Amino acid sequence: MNEFQLIQQYFQQPNLAFSNAYLRHGIGDDCATLNIPSEFDLHLSLDTLVEDVHFPKQANAFDIATRALAVSISDLAAMGAIPIGFTLAITLPSNDESWIKAFTAGVAQAAQFYHCPLIGGDTTKGPCLVLSLQVHGITPNGKGLSRGGAQLGDKVYVSGNLGDAAGALPMVLNDPSLNTGLAQQYYAPIAQIEFAQAIKGYASSCLDISDGLVQDLNHLCKASNVGMVIDPGLIPMSDELLKTYGNAQALTYALSGGDDYQLAYTAEDCQYGICIGEVVAGEKVEVKGMTLAAGGYQHF
Amino acid sequence: MNEFQLIQQYFQQPNLAFSNAYLRHGIGDDCATLNIPSEFDLHLSLDTLVEDVHFPKQANAFDIATRALAVSISDLAAMGAIPIGFTLAITLPSNDESWIKAFTAGVAQAAQFYHCPLIGGDTTKGPCLVLSLQVHGITPNGKGLSRGGAQLGDKVYVSGNLGDAAGALPMVLNDPSLNTGLAQQYYAPIAQIEFAQAIKGYASSCLDISDGLVQDLNHLCKASNVGMVIDPGLIPMSDELLKTYGNAQALTYALSGGDDYQLAYTAEDCQYGICIGEVVAGEKVEVKGMTLAAGGYQHF
Repeated sequence: MNEFQLIQQYFQQPNLAFSNAYLRHGIGDDCATLNIPSEFDLHLSLDTLVEDVHFPKQANAFDIATRALAVSISDLAAMGAIPIGFTLAITLPSNDESWIKAFTAGVAQAAQFYHCPLIGGDTTKGPCLVLSLQVHGITPNGKGLSRGGAQLGDKVYVSGNLGDAAGALPMVLNDPSLNTGLAQQYYAPIAQIEFAQAIKGYASSCLDISDGLVQDLNHLCKASNVGMVIDPGLIPMSDELLKTYGNAQALTYALSGGDDYQLAYTAEDCQYGICIGEVVAGEKVEVKGMTLAAGGYQHF
Repeated sequence: MNEFQLIQQYFQQPNLAFSNAYLRHGIGDDCATLNIPSEFDLHLSLDTLVEDVHFPKQANAFDIATRALAVSISDLAAMGAIPIGFTLAITLPSNDESWIKAFTAGVAQAAQFYHCPLIGGDTTKGPCLVLSLQVHGITPNGKGLSRGGAQLGDKVYVSGNLGDAAGALPMVLNDPSLNTGLAQQYYAPIAQIEFAQAIKGYASSCLDISDGLVQDLNHLCKASNVGMVIDPGLIPMSDELLKTYGNAQALTYALSGGDDYQLAYTAEDCQYGICIGEVVAGEKVEVKGMTLAAGGYQHF
C-alpha cells in the first residue's frame, strides 16, 4: 500500500475527514481551504509529540492518537475557542498498515468527540515516530481568552483534578499498553472545550495546564504582571491518586506534574471550577507553606 | 539556555516574528490568533521535513531553514495564495545554540523574502531533527487555484526550468555544505508566489512540482479527469544541468526528479511560462516517444 492509498483509505475516512460550515475543501489539493466569517477570530496552535519523549513508543496506536488530538485541542480550550478542524503530519518508521489502521481509528474517535475534522496533513517516512498536529478554532472577535488579563484581587481556579496524569506516568512507562484506571488519565485527557465556554464570561486570564500547575501559573503571572498565592489544601486531587500515592506525593504530582490538560484561570468570582488561591501583587506563584525547587517540565 | 529563552531570543526576533494586518497576536499565548476578512479564503498546508530523508543532516542550518520555508510556501503558490504567516514545530536532538542561531537566521531571511512571519510553533527534544511547517495564505473567495479544473484542449505549462534540484542532489549528498551552482537550486528553491499571481487569470488547474513532473501532472489528470500529452523537446532545462549531465540524464531528472518547486498548470492560452504539451481525453500523462517506469518519489 503506497502513500496515496494509505491517505485515501485511512486518513480520508468519512468519520475523520468530515466537512463543516467553515471548510471549503480539505484533503486532496496542495492546501486545505477555510472560509471564516469576519466576526470570528481564528485561533491556531501547532504541537509536536515525539515517541519516548511525549508518549511511550510501545503504547497502543489508538491511545497515542486519542491523546495526541486531545492534548492539541486543549490549546483551543485555553483560548475559549470552538474547534473547527486540524491538520496532522505524521512521520513513521514504516508503513505498518495495522498500526495505521488503529491509529486513525483513534484519531477518528477523538475527531468525532470534539467535532473537529482532519482537513489536511502530510505523511513522511523517518527514523522515529513524530506527530505534529495543528488545531484551528474560532471565537467571536476579540473574545478569546488569554494569559494576560489576571487582575489583583481575582481568585485563581482550576477546572478539575490535578496530578492524575503524572501519577499515571510511572505505570504507563512500566506497561505502555496499560490504559485503564489512572493510566486512562494519561492516555485520554479531555480537552476542556465545554468548560471553557462556561467560564468565558467570567475568566480574566486562562491557560491549559500542560507543564505543571506551578510552572503554568507562572506563565499567567508573567503575562499579567501579577503574583499568586496558592493554598495547597484547596488543590483538587482524585481519590485514586491519593489512595495510590498518599497525600505528599500526590500533591507533588498535582503541583509540578504535567499532562492533565485541565484549565487554570483567574476571575473576580466564578461559579465553575475549584478556587485554589488568589492573585496578589508580585511576579510569581507562592504555594503556602511550601518551597518548590523548579517544578514543571522543560524540554532543554 | 532553556526552551523559553531560546524561543524569546531566536524565534521571537523582530525580523522573523513580525506582524501584519491579519495577525491579532502571534507567539506567546496558547494559540496564535488571526482575523481574516470574510471576502478572503484562508489556505493552509502542513509539511514535514526529516533529516536525511528530506535534507542532509549535515547541511548548513541556514540552508536547511531557507529550503524548508520555500518548500512549504510553494503549496501556497500552487493555490495562487499570498502568504500571511507560518507556524514551525522543530524537534531537535540538542539545544546547540549556534545551530539554532544559524537556522533562525535562515528562517528569518526567507520570512522577510516572502513577507510571511512566524506566528507560532513548538520546540521539542527528540532523537532526530524533524521540521513541521504550516503555511497560511489568502485569496479572494473562491479564487484559489486547484488541481481539478483542467479542460480538454487546454495547454500544459510549467513556470521554469526542471531537473536542477534532482541534478543537484548527488552533489549535495556528496558534500552537504555545498550550496553554490546547481546545489543552490536544491537548497534555495523559490516558491513561485509572484508567478502564480500572474497566471491566476488564465490557469484552469495548477500544482507545484515537488515529486517530479510526470507524477505531479498525473495528480492534475486524476483530479481533472483528463489525460495529457507532453513533448519532451519542450521541457525547459538549465544550461548547467545539460552541461553537467548531458541531454538524456538531464531529461530523466526533469521528468521524474522532485524538489524544483516550479508550478505546472493548464490554461486555454497563457502568455506566462513554457508550454510543454496539451490536455487530451484520457486519464494519464503520456510523454511523446518515451515509456516511463514509475517516475517520481513516494515515501513508502
